[in-house]
Amino acid sequence: MQKLFEHIKKFSQVSDSDLKLIESVTSKKVYDKKDHLLTAGHRCHFKYFILSGCMRSYFMNNKGGEQIVNFGIEDWWMTDYDSFVNEDISHLNIQALEQCEVLRLSRSDFDHVVATSAGLNTYFRVILEKRHIADQRRIQYMFNMSGEEIYDHFNRSNPDFVQRVPQYMLASYLGFTPEFLSKIRKRKIENGS
Amino acid sequence: MQKLFEHIKKFSQVSDSDLKLIESVTSKKVYDKKDHLLTAGHRCHFKYFILSGCMRSYFMNNKGGEQIVNFGIEDWWMTDYDSFVNEDISHLNIQALEQCEVLRLSRSDFDHVVATSAGLNTYFRVILEKRHIADQRRIQYMFNMSGEEIYDHFNRSNPDFVQRVPQYMLASYLGFTPEFLSKIRKRKIENGS
Repeated sequence: MQKLFEHIKKFSQVSDSDLKLIESVTSKKVYDKKDHLLTAGHRCHFKYFILSGCMRSYFMNNKGGEQIVNFGIEDWWMTDYDSFVNEDISHLNIQALEQCEVLRLSRSDFDHVVATSAGLNTYFRVILEKRHIADQRRIQYMFNMSGEEIYDHFNRSNPDFVQRVPQYMLASYLGFTPEFLSKIRKRKIENGS
Repeated sequence: MQKLFEHIKKFSQVSDSDLKLIESVTSKKVYDKKDHLLTAGHRCHFKYFILSGCMRSYFMNNKGGEQIVNFGIEDWWMTDYDSFVNEDISHLNIQALEQCEVLRLSRSDFDHVVATSAGLNTYFRVILEKRHIADQRRIQYMFNMSGEEIYDHFNRSNPDFVQRVPQYMLASYLGFTPEFLSKIRKRKIENGS
């Protein structure tokens, strides 16, 4: 639990009883590489705090291919908010890309936690602020940057992460074809950058 | 204030003293059409709850043109979260597209409000959940829909709104050139759809 406690304390002032509360409602789960935590067509009943490992969310696009929406790594809450909050069927899949150890929090326990603890309510609000800011930046990059600039920016912002994910998945997340990503990488190697 | 009170009560359980608290820290402002509420290069010190009117946020893109990021209408909180939360210089502009009546909430008052009132803390968390869900849907549309599908979807989701905004601004928000939007609209008229 220590990892989650530290993450919470980074963003909110919480008491020992707040931490005990969240401990009492989360359960540890391990998913093997390639396991699905959520499959499209089902409701997303949980938020997952990633203790170790790496996962992705994706949907099947109109062309029948997989479009990656988000990656999640350590200290990240992974869920489909749309389904989790609106209690609706999800069209996303969440899949482990490595063996993943997570803490699982159900919708009803989440509701209980934020209604009971001001500190945890604040924690989840602050997390959402960060997520919204990241989304807005991403939308702005998508409008304003060339493919090469987007790739450079992602590399600079997530140097460790780029090593952990296959190139074709990175291409999907960035909205490129794998061929386009290869071309950028080749050019960079030739330029020594 | 009634409009804001109703909006808050839609999303959170609040007491009369919660409502009095937010009333005591917000101030009403009127902006004329074309006035800027925020100019790039300055810090965004406020959140604005829109009582009436319509506004946009935009930035100057790499090609020297205006790229619209968001529109805001009645019952919408408008701000640059990135600057407001991180207390950093904004690269966005927020501009009134009609005469706008807003309630203004400063960063320090916001901090005070969410720290003091559990009900208002929840209100702002729920607003952010909705915002994050909307962002995620938008990112998914950008990846998956053709220009025509994006335009149809926006029209269906925001029928009243489309009438209030000049076509070239709508094109910018959707990531089209004005020429591309004209082409789609012309095709629709020819097809009677």
